[in-house]
Amino acid sequence: MRALVWNGRKLSFERSRPEPAADERNALVRVLLAGICSTDLQIFKGYMGFQGIPGHEFVGEVAEGPQGLQGKRVTGEINFACGSCESCQSGLGRHCAERRVMGILGADGCFAEYVKVPVENLHPVLEQLSNEEAVFTEPLAAAFEISEQVQFSAGDQVLVLGDGKLGLLCAQALRLTGAKVSLLGKHEDKLSLLQGMEIQTCLLSHWKPQRYDVVVEATGSSGGLKMALEAVRPRGTLVLKSTLAEPHTLSLAPVVINEVTVVGSRCGLFPPALDALAKKEVIVTPLIDGIYALKDGAKAVAHAARAGALKVILRNG
Amino acid sequence: MRALVWNGRKLSFERSRPEPAADERNALVRVLLAGICSTDLQIFKGYMGFQGIPGHEFVGEVAEGPQGLQGKRVTGEINFACGSCESCQSGLGRHCAERRVMGILGADGCFAEYVKVPVENLHPVLEQLSNEEAVFTEPLAAAFEISEQVQFSAGDQVLVLGDGKLGLLCAQALRLTGAKVSLLGKHEDKLSLLQGMEIQTCLLSHWKPQRYDVVVEATGSSGGLKMALEAVRPRGTLVLKSTLAEPHTLSLAPVVINEVTVVGSRCGLFPPALDALAKKEVIVTPLIDGIYALKDGAKAVAHAARAGALKVILRNG
Repeated sequence: MRALVWNGRKLSFERSRPEPAADERNALVRVLLAGICSTDLQIFKGYMGFQGIPGHEFVGEVAEGPQGLQGKRVTGEINFACGSCESCQSGLGRHCAERRVMGILGADGCFAEYVKVPVENLHPVLEQLSNEEAVFTEPLAAAFEISEQVQFSAGDQVLVLGDGKLGLLCAQALRLTGAKVSLLGKHEDKLSLLQGMEIQTCLLSHWKPQRYDVVVEATGSSGGLKMALEAVRPRGTLVLKSTLAEPHTLSLAPVVINEVTVVGSRCGLFPPALDALAKKEVIVTPLIDGIYALKDGAKAVAHAARAGALKVILRNG
Repeated sequence: MRALVWNGRKLSFERSRPEPAADERNALVRVLLAGICSTDLQIFKGYMGFQGIPGHEFVGEVAEGPQGLQGKRVTGEINFACGSCESCQSGLGRHCAERRVMGILGADGCFAEYVKVPVENLHPVLEQLSNEEAVFTEPLAAAFEISEQVQFSAGDQVLVLGDGKLGLLCAQALRLTGAKVSLLGKHEDKLSLLQGMEIQTCLLSHWKPQRYDVVVEATGSSGGLKMALEAVRPRGTLVLKSTLAEPHTLSLAPVVINEVTVVGSRCGLFPPALDALAKKEVIVTPLIDGIYALKDGAKAVAHAARAGALKVILRNG
């Protein structure tokens, strides 16, 4: 099959990569669309030491799998858990110590014609959703993860820092909690994507520092982290969504002095994301910045890595 | 009056420092004993840019104040709050943005014959408590603050990192929550102070890394922070008790990947600490490493700053 392959130094397009095989636990999914995530860009800088086929955001069609799923459109959760450890037994398979992670750790990903996915990870996609919407399920689930972890009260003042892909999704997901959400970013055109959604948007250049009950750091920069710490009120909550691979210098003294709670937040469950997409409670397709054929993967990655790029998508075929 | 004075560069013993005066809101307390805290040592390195009389741990006698308190032995909470802002109104005066902090921010401290304290900050000390016990109220309250902020369940596995003053107090305070508490430290003699208290102690040199539900970082070093991050289970809680003034280099990626909750924890309310002291649920006097006369303050501070020193106390008179 055709696939993009990362060998630790270079991303290549291969035309005759061996096709994975379905088995009792795993389905074979023909990829329709795959999204490029900031984590993929971190992988190309060495994050996780991953080698193989990257990619973990997809919508596809089950080519081989259980009868009920055969031919169905699906998305898939990315943590492949052992199913038997303490984490798995308590419903936290995405923290299984033995897990493999699609396109990130020990498992090939979806920048390919086909991807092998544990059957239990698959979620059927409702007919009313386009492929372009469904491919956002994974990053949108990561945005909904915040409200799985943090209790919001109606009227809570929430600041999302960063108007990139993740920030735009987080702001929308958090609006549904009843909190008063503000989104702070550098790009007028991106902030305007959320017009009419009851999300207050603000350009960084016009921002007057103030304190929020909850601040979500989604800038992906260590500068954002410092600013986020300054924007959270004493006894407030700072949610970290960005994975910064490199060590960075900061003082955690403000966390102690102001008794801030810092919550690391990563992958989420798919059902809340699929549900919000189905109900049109969130908009995602305006976040698409470009769609490339799989063979043009290198160009697509270069586009995704450009400052200010939103979601870049790979099309299989 | 006699007092130790920090001018930003040097700690001096002054014999004729002007005595503060009581007023409608503030009592004048004659200090009996005062404890030297790691925060004081940080102040002597420039923390908070404080100048004046340092010190915020004390037991004293009300020399001038409301009739009910006159002549009574007291300890005092260290945050002098405005009383009218949103934080104060919600019972979090210790996070009042306008607060002064005894011996730390905008208010003289207790390394002196007399200290001026808002009447509402004072707590009478029961007769059954010695001065040597009562002087531990403030640091013990900081240890109890953890269980104000974090919900513990019986059987939770808790690791306290660091067998210094704060670690020894935190381990004892957390034992009272019903959690299974382990204390990890470098000093056999210090760990042995907690013998017979149902606290598992372990020497760092014998430690086999494992994962805990809650880890309390009380080493006061950035190395401790890294180790604490490694010892907390996915979705577990890391409590930061140490205020490190200097920026340090670390990666917060494990916080995100493992969805750890980091809770900054500082000062606590006095009643739980006074209650535990009265009930003899905690031991504190074995933590006293030395007692010095006020005039020997410089020597006392040098002692407190020695690696491995426990609590050093100043005696007035």
